[in-house]
Amino acid sequence: MTAQLPVLPRLIVEEAVKAALLEDWGRAGDLTSQATIPAEATATAVIAARKPGVLAGLALAESAFRLTDDAINFETVAADGDRLEKGTVVARISGPARAILSAERVALNFLGHLSGVATATARFADLIAHTSADIVCTRKTTPGLRTFEKYAVRCGGGSNHRFGLDDAILIKDNHIAVAGGVTQAIEAAKAFKGHLVKLEVEVDTLEQLKEALACGPDVILLDNFDPDRLREAVAITAGRVPLEASGGIEADTVKAIAESGVDLISSGWITHSSPVLDLGLDIEIG
Amino acid sequence: MTAQLPVLPRLIVEEAVKAALLEDWGRAGDLTSQATIPAEATATAVIAARKPGVLAGLALAESAFRLTDDAINFETVAADGDRLEKGTVVARISGPARAILSAERVALNFLGHLSGVATATARFADLIAHTSADIVCTRKTTPGLRTFEKYAVRCGGGSNHRFGLDDAILIKDNHIAVAGGVTQAIEAAKAFKGHLVKLEVEVDTLEQLKEALACGPDVILLDNFDPDRLREAVAITAGRVPLEASGGIEADTVKAIAESGVDLISSGWITHSSPVLDLGLDIEIG
Amino acid sequence: MTAQLPVLPRLIVEEAVKAALLEDWGRAGDLTSQATIPAEATATAVIAARKPGVLAGLALAESAFRLTDDAINFETVAADGDRLEKGTVVARISGPARAILSAERVALNFLGHLSGVATATARFADLIAHTSADIVCTRKTTPGLRTFEKYAVRCGGGSNHRFGLDDAILIKDNHIAVAGGVTQAIEAAKAFKGHLVKLEVEVDTLEQLKEALACGPDVILLDNFDPDRLREAVAITAGRVPLEASGGIEADTVKAIAESGVDLISSGWITHSSPVLDLGLDIEIG
Amino acid sequence: MTAQLPVLPRLIVEEAVKAALLEDWGRAGDLTSQATIPAEATATAVIAARKPGVLAGLALAESAFRLTDDAINFETVAADGDRLEKGTVVARISGPARAILSAERVALNFLGHLSGVATATARFADLIAHTSADIVCTRKTTPGLRTFEKYAVRCGGGSNHRFGLDDAILIKDNHIAVAGGVTQAIEAAKAFKGHLVKLEVEVDTLEQLKEALACGPDVILLDNFDPDRLREAVAITAGRVPLEASGGIEADTVKAIAESGVDLISSGWITHSSPVLDLGLDIEIG
Amino acid sequence: MTAQLPVLPRLIVEEAVKAALLEDWGRAGDLTSQATIPAEATATAVIAARKPGVLAGLALAESAFRLTDDAINFETVAADGDRLEKGTVVARISGPARAILSAERVALNFLGHLSGVATATARFADLIAHTSADIVCTRKTTPGLRTFEKYAVRCGGGSNHRFGLDDAILIKDNHIAVAGGVTQAIEAAKAFKGHLVKLEVEVDTLEQLKEALACGPDVILLDNFDPDRLREAVAITAGRVPLEASGGIEADTVKAIAESGVDLISSGWITHSSPVLDLGLDIEIG
Amino acid sequence: MTAQLPVLPRLIVEEAVKAALLEDWGRAGDLTSQATIPAEATATAVIAARKPGVLAGLALAESAFRLTDDAINFETVAADGDRLEKGTVVARISGPARAILSAERVALNFLGHLSGVATATARFADLIAHTSADIVCTRKTTPGLRTFEKYAVRCGGGSNHRFGLDDAILIKDNHIAVAGGVTQAIEAAKAFKGHLVKLEVEVDTLEQLKEALACGPDVILLDNFDPDRLREAVAITAGRVPLEASGGIEADTVKAIAESGVDLISSGWITHSSPVLDLGLDIEIG
Repeated sequence: MTAQLPVLPRLIVEEAVKAALLEDWGRAGDLTSQATIPAEATATAVIAARKPGVLAGLALAESAFRLTDDAINFETVAADGDRLEKGTVVARISGPARAILSAERVALNFLGHLSGVATATARFADLIAHTSADIVCTRKTTPGLRTFEKYAVRCGGGSNHRFGLDDAILIKDNHIAVAGGVTQAIEAAKAFKGHLVKLEVEVDTLEQLKEALACGPDVILLDNFDPDRLREAVAITAGRVPLEASGGIEADTVKAIAESGVDLISSGWITHSSPVLDLGLDIEIG
Repeated sequence: MTAQLPVLPRLIVEEAVKAALLEDWGRAGDLTSQATIPAEATATAVIAARKPGVLAGLALAESAFRLTDDAINFETVAADGDRLEKGTVVARISGPARAILSAERVALNFLGHLSGVATATARFADLIAHTSADIVCTRKTTPGLRTFEKYAVRCGGGSNHRFGLDDAILIKDNHIAVAGGVTQAIEAAKAFKGHLVKLEVEVDTLEQLKEALACGPDVILLDNFDPDRLREAVAITAGRVPLEASGGIEADTVKAIAESGVDLISSGWITHSSPVLDLGLDIEIG
Repeated sequence: MTAQLPVLPRLIVEEAVKAALLEDWGRAGDLTSQATIPAEATATAVIAARKPGVLAGLALAESAFRLTDDAINFETVAADGDRLEKGTVVARISGPARAILSAERVALNFLGHLSGVATATARFADLIAHTSADIVCTRKTTPGLRTFEKYAVRCGGGSNHRFGLDDAILIKDNHIAVAGGVTQAIEAAKAFKGHLVKLEVEVDTLEQLKEALACGPDVILLDNFDPDRLREAVAITAGRVPLEASGGIEADTVKAIAESGVDLISSGWITHSSPVLDLGLDIEIG
Repeated sequence: MTAQLPVLPRLIVEEAVKAALLEDWGRAGDLTSQATIPAEATATAVIAARKPGVLAGLALAESAFRLTDDAINFETVAADGDRLEKGTVVARISGPARAILSAERVALNFLGHLSGVATATARFADLIAHTSADIVCTRKTTPGLRTFEKYAVRCGGGSNHRFGLDDAILIKDNHIAVAGGVTQAIEAAKAFKGHLVKLEVEVDTLEQLKEALACGPDVILLDNFDPDRLREAVAITAGRVPLEASGGIEADTVKAIAESGVDLISSGWITHSSPVLDLGLDIEIG
Repeated sequence: MTAQLPVLPRLIVEEAVKAALLEDWGRAGDLTSQATIPAEATATAVIAARKPGVLAGLALAESAFRLTDDAINFETVAADGDRLEKGTVVARISGPARAILSAERVALNFLGHLSGVATATARFADLIAHTSADIVCTRKTTPGLRTFEKYAVRCGGGSNHRFGLDDAILIKDNHIAVAGGVTQAIEAAKAFKGHLVKLEVEVDTLEQLKEALACGPDVILLDNFDPDRLREAVAITAGRVPLEASGGIEADTVKAIAESGVDLISSGWITHSSPVLDLGLDIEIG
Repeated sequence: MTAQLPVLPRLIVEEAVKAALLEDWGRAGDLTSQATIPAEATATAVIAARKPGVLAGLALAESAFRLTDDAINFETVAADGDRLEKGTVVARISGPARAILSAERVALNFLGHLSGVATATARFADLIAHTSADIVCTRKTTPGLRTFEKYAVRCGGGSNHRFGLDDAILIKDNHIAVAGGVTQAIEAAKAFKGHLVKLEVEVDTLEQLKEALACGPDVILLDNFDPDRLREAVAITAGRVPLEASGGIEADTVKAIAESGVDLISSGWITHSSPVLDLGLDIEIG
């Protein structure tokens, strides 16, 4: 069964787009278009991919144009999650020329960045499609864009880790050190957390893995294990809880890691370091 | 004379950091630290580079810790703009352990992203240091982070293009098309703009360049010219206005472009596609 | 092992308190104190319980005074979660008399409301303390106060259900109806959700319970089951997943429900209908 | 002549509802509906009372649905201020099923809370309908909801006390103590206040009442007077200014208090401690 | 007895000043000071009047400096409400030179504007000081600055009319027309309003005045009455309610109007058209 | 060629108008209209000039009505920048009577203030129309209204100086003093600023003017030069850079200053001290 893609709530989209437009317009708005484009000029435009990739963020692009001028018509031709070839048109836009030009950069900044995240995710996801592992993101996101980057990861075929510090427990080395051990940390967390909060624990060694397994966490994160140790960990765990591999995930290592049998492979790179997908707006003013 | 680095106003830093902390904390805050770290536990930590690069964003990192708990002491050891080796310590932190852990990710997300921008800028700047050209950024920035990314470009040795649509005129092909030509567009813009607003015009051909030169803009942008044509443009211009080269700027093309004699080379890549600089926080809780 | 109480992040507290102060002050501030209290008058005051109950919200009360005038000294004598007798002093305050009077109502509005939630929770928790069931809250909270009411539930000895629509899946009758059945709904949710999101499903009948159990959700909610059916459900479930009883939870029914062997009993009443705990401020202006 | 009900300005309603929706949706929105409800599914629903009471807050409920998706149609069947029987339908809703489910809880949280306030107010108002006294609210409101709770009091047949510290003077015991007496406090306040600000003074004794009367305040508040002393106060005052009874107002005392002849009876309970009115949404997804 | 001046709450001051600083700093802050003033340079400065007038707004000026850099020391030498000669020093400032220069304009923009309002008010107040009339302001204020302009009116010796549409009733000609007459409008308003809301009614003729008097409003506004008719109105009213003269109040008419015996004279001019008071900052950087 | 007028972006207009409406409505909205105007009453109205002047701010007025109730129809009859006679109608309004009355004051406060700025600007512009000089504004604007006042200056035929501290360099006496001289300050600024930032320098003497000219700034400001010295400065400069005269610009001095041959004359008075243009709303409720 194919999972549905998430949907970004309109209110959340509009808050972010409004802030981005105001950031770009400053105090005086688009001087160049005010100076050179008559108020009554209209235009049609297409947004198209200039490089192959995976699309994410159409709702933000649409919102950028419509918040600038609700007389703009924005027709989507592709959908988030679509694989794009070089030249694939993703949207057609028509309306006041000034407004289209004033909104263009903000629309493309969102669309390029998020499609970049989706494309990077898809690249990893493709490399491990023959295994049962999923690519997941982390909290290493761009400040202010977490909701959207997490969404883009889904568009690229990845899955979402926790969204913040408050929606799941993730016990790391420092928590373990203070709590006095893996068992103590897990017990403290179980005593503290609500019944709908999952608990994941990070382990650095196979011994810690065994100790963790005895405590019944929901997920175990294997930090910086190489493929051989990952395989050992998979054997020890024997399916009792999902295992997440983390650390040093790159294009040339991810296949071997996925083939170790882990369930999840987390990558900060897909959100914090993926280059934008090059998308452009071609306009005809008439 | 070496230019001073810009300074990020504290109010602007705090607004952005507060939003990022609230994004990460959600409704319930850092569950894991609340569960496993006693309120009275203290810690010391260092932030250090895990890869070589250029530092940018210390004020945002400091703010993340201090807005979480003003009992945290944050001592800078390096300064924005510094070249870091692998292992270089940039800050020492001490105070309540919970707060340090709750602020860590936001601090590193800002610091890693902005140092990534600075590092990418410096890489280009180093490649063209033997020429008189400067690397400049564009409006292709991450929504919400323009002020900080522009600052990071400066930390990396680059220079800043306009900050938004309102602080300078940049006439592009579409504006020229609607206005009826280069001359008409420049004249319309000069009639419109205030005396403290600069006017840059983008040209696609040497003929447009000549037409533009006759109108006396402040800067001319040469869009997608190869090095040979850039050299021709430089010869034609003969120092009358600064020339900016734009389009297809990459590590293996930037040197030849700079050697053509242009004054400015603009890159969207340094802000929208630079990978983070890997910086980590090592903590000792005691 | 006794769980730690959660801690409300200072930034979250201050945003809420600032909004409440501005709501009370309107455009002109505290006219009466400005008119009748000299600027230089100082005062000491105590906040004390006028009825027995459980304390919650001291950080908000303190913030109300300190945001009004940081020259106010606020010394806590009790702690959130404490059982208060009639007359128990919870805080001592000293500083500018005007500021103390201008902040008093906002401080008490937060403190009384949240202590009311804690007190209501504790009343239920006490009634079922001899069982293994926990009282949990719902999303039936006062708009704008969810974080604080969830916190107050913890102060009263309850546990937290999900904080919103985004941190856990809760499949209800309407979702089941559209999805085409319990199994289909759970499968759709599993395919959609991330690995750190728990999945709870609501069932109306024992047949649905059996169907749900076969799908392996994290929690099952038994909607409006009477104690006999709850006992049957507990027997059928045999500890495979936690069971939550919901619907019609009142002071005279909660004991029998808890004794059925369910793990969780959810109550909207404790957040949406609990009366305030009467706390007062006694001031000496000198 | 029957007074018109107040009208909540749309901008004020939308600000509050938007904040409440974002509080409920968190970073990822309604996971369950996204997972189990197809984007194209539509639904019809009714909101109906599950207990008798007085309605208040329809505009907030409507706004919750329409801000979630403006394709939702919301048809009011009852009006704020209406007496509801168990089962009375108050609104019919139709549109996208996902959006209806995502907005339901916020809509009901506002509607239930405010109808609870209206119902509590009406209960007191009914008990004293044979007298000339009015029930009035206080500043003991839920932080963030003052405008709405004051409105709900009106829906329940009560009248509004001041909305904040800035729209009327209310001199209390502490102000009197510092000012040096009732007369001094009233004189200071008269000298300070504008000509459109009313002045009320709180008195604890009949002596203070007489002193206050001599100063010509607009209203006198009799704090914690029993019915006998209230009657005496009414006799002394002889209609010169309205009298407000305050303190210990409960369902079994309010009648005697009203029959003393006072004009106003203020109750914090109706805003801070009234239970919600149980209203539910019944949905048919098709 | 001399009334105390109002006090602007710090939170309200800081919100407004923060917004003004961000408006002036834009995205990049004070370029000139960053470029030319070393970070470590310190300065001392004085703010002094360049023209005689009345001071208002010191708290906003102080806040501008301190929010820019809390290392700035701001010592007040004069107080709001003081009469200033040309050259009178009102504050001494010392601290980081850059921050002083970056905050200067915002501080002076507030201080000059508000002192301008105070000065204009004082000018009218002085002209009628021999009468019992007070100068009052209106709702004709600068958007965003009502609280501060109302405060400045007090500093200038004036008194405050209502602060908004919600803190008092003011029935004007249009309300009367719709309601069906003066009596009907007043009765509708009395039925609607709470007991702490004052009711003022505007009348255009002596007949309306008589009708209004019969209804017992709190204040009557005489719209555009000349001094003769004002005197007649005063005679008719015979002290039963305060009378407010409004319309065409100018420096050369206000004396005659005040001598008619009215209690209040309202002027939009003092808030919407008063020129700034010229105050300057003289700095010594060392 | 006549320059186009700038256009205020709708988002920027709506943010400001929303804040102004909420400031005027407070917590309870327009009590008087709620009390006296039936919900179903409709009205038509015109906004007309009561004095001659220049119009500015129609978009803000329209927004005030439409944000209050989008059922209001607002038809513009004049345009910003138009010269108005006494009695000229600028807009016709129709719709719900209550909403029209509730929005009226905010609409007129914006329109009157901005038309006042435009009118003052036009008065100066007319006086110097026979010269080549332009009137420009300064940063001496009303806090919160800079964008709108700068726009109004354009409507009045003036031109805009920089919008804030970040969009142009303006080196003043204090910067020169710290930097060690005119040359040093200009060089520091050139080294610091981006290529699209203009540099203006203020000089107090003809010697400084000569020194500045040698450094090639974009504009030179002549501070407090009398017409004779201005003429000398113009002669010395010989058209190499635009010259701006500043200081003591008043209606009876501006002509002589303009005739000296300077290019720009800056006035703080037009934004900080211009009286409102009297515009009124005449309503017919039917």
